[in-house]
Amino acid sequence: MKIPSSSIPRISRYYRVLLSLKDPVVSSQELADLTGSGAAQIRKDLAYFGQFGRPGKGYGTEALKQELKKILGIDRNWAVALVGIGNLGSALLAYKGFKDQGFNIKYAFDNDRKKIGRSRQGIKIRDIKNIPSVIKASGIEMAVIAVPQSSAQDVVDMLVASGIKAILNFAPAVLKVSDGVELLNIDLSIEMEKLTYFLQRNKA
Amino acid sequence: MKIPSSSIPRISRYYRVLLSLKDPVVSSQELADLTGSGAAQIRKDLAYFGQFGRPGKGYGTEALKQELKKILGIDRNWAVALVGIGNLGSALLAYKGFKDQGFNIKYAFDNDRKKIGRSRQGIKIRDIKNIPSVIKASGIEMAVIAVPQSSAQDVVDMLVASGIKAILNFAPAVLKVSDGVELLNIDLSIEMEKLTYFLQRNKA
Repeated sequence: MKIPSSSIPRISRYYRVLLSLKDPVVSSQELADLTGSGAAQIRKDLAYFGQFGRPGKGYGTEALKQELKKILGIDRNWAVALVGIGNLGSALLAYKGFKDQGFNIKYAFDNDRKKIGRSRQGIKIRDIKNIPSVIKASGIEMAVIAVPQSSAQDVVDMLVASGIKAILNFAPAVLKVSDGVELLNIDLSIEMEKLTYFLQRNKA
Repeated sequence: MKIPSSSIPRISRYYRVLLSLKDPVVSSQELADLTGSGAAQIRKDLAYFGQFGRPGKGYGTEALKQELKKILGIDRNWAVALVGIGNLGSALLAYKGFKDQGFNIKYAFDNDRKKIGRSRQGIKIRDIKNIPSVIKASGIEMAVIAVPQSSAQDVVDMLVASGIKAILNFAPAVLKVSDGVELLNIDLSIEMEKLTYFLQRNKA
């Protein structure tokens, strides 16, 4: 069965809601009220992954929570490589939320000689040239990129050639990856500009 | 003319590409090659806002850049209020990229007594209770939220009642705003979980 990629962020939201639920049983309607998705949508999303609840009885909160963790791959910790320790990279390195969610930034890379060899947040900054050897030896599959636009594609290519399979990209660049590699983009300036567009349009 | 909201992030990308272009004139085909959007799409997106280029001649790079800045509302600086100075809020406060793009975090708010009154990155942390008086007096229209899920809706309601018109929300919560207020959500855990879902599925 082909699972639509739009189901996954919804499953993340169902999981978030379950975390704060006290009731031992939850209905799809309750989940709908709490997440903003429709009850039918929720039943459909969950059905892709198996038969969890009992029709008319709802879902066992704890069991569903554990199943969703497994589906999302967050029933384990993940080592992460962070490339680009500029303003945003430093902020991401300091962001403890990643660790709380099981994402351990294990290696940090930059190409700035003034930064290489120093430690930030207890993590040594390594030369970007060492990506192939370090990543291959570590077996890490996940990377976060916060490099300038001009070097983003080179960094991605190096990461993918070294075995990285999933990339969260904060560089404001349109990047290509080969099949079998997942690339997601977050561009903070683009988000902020959606807001300023909205604000200035309403003034015009 | 109704401008589709999907045009705006594309216009942000065209603008980014123009920033690094040296040629005085650029064709929609060149912009297409650099941004990954189609040339016809680019002409359509720009046509919503006026007649910029000359058919068959392309666009004047500098003139188009200035026009896109105006469209996106980034031909001026914006004062921003940041609410929630936890792990992520602190990282956002330290992120200098906002300032480089004309977004000045002018006020920071938290409800933690240990933080209120202290300064971070040169910005005083104020009591969240003072949002109404401070925001109303300042006339700020833009806010970034990095509070826990449980308090996110209350914070949004307070901000909107105080005159905030555009919100970038990092809280993992489904939030409601009234008409005339723009709310955008960035949930880093959801993005990371899209990646771990992909990684674990390929292992299964």
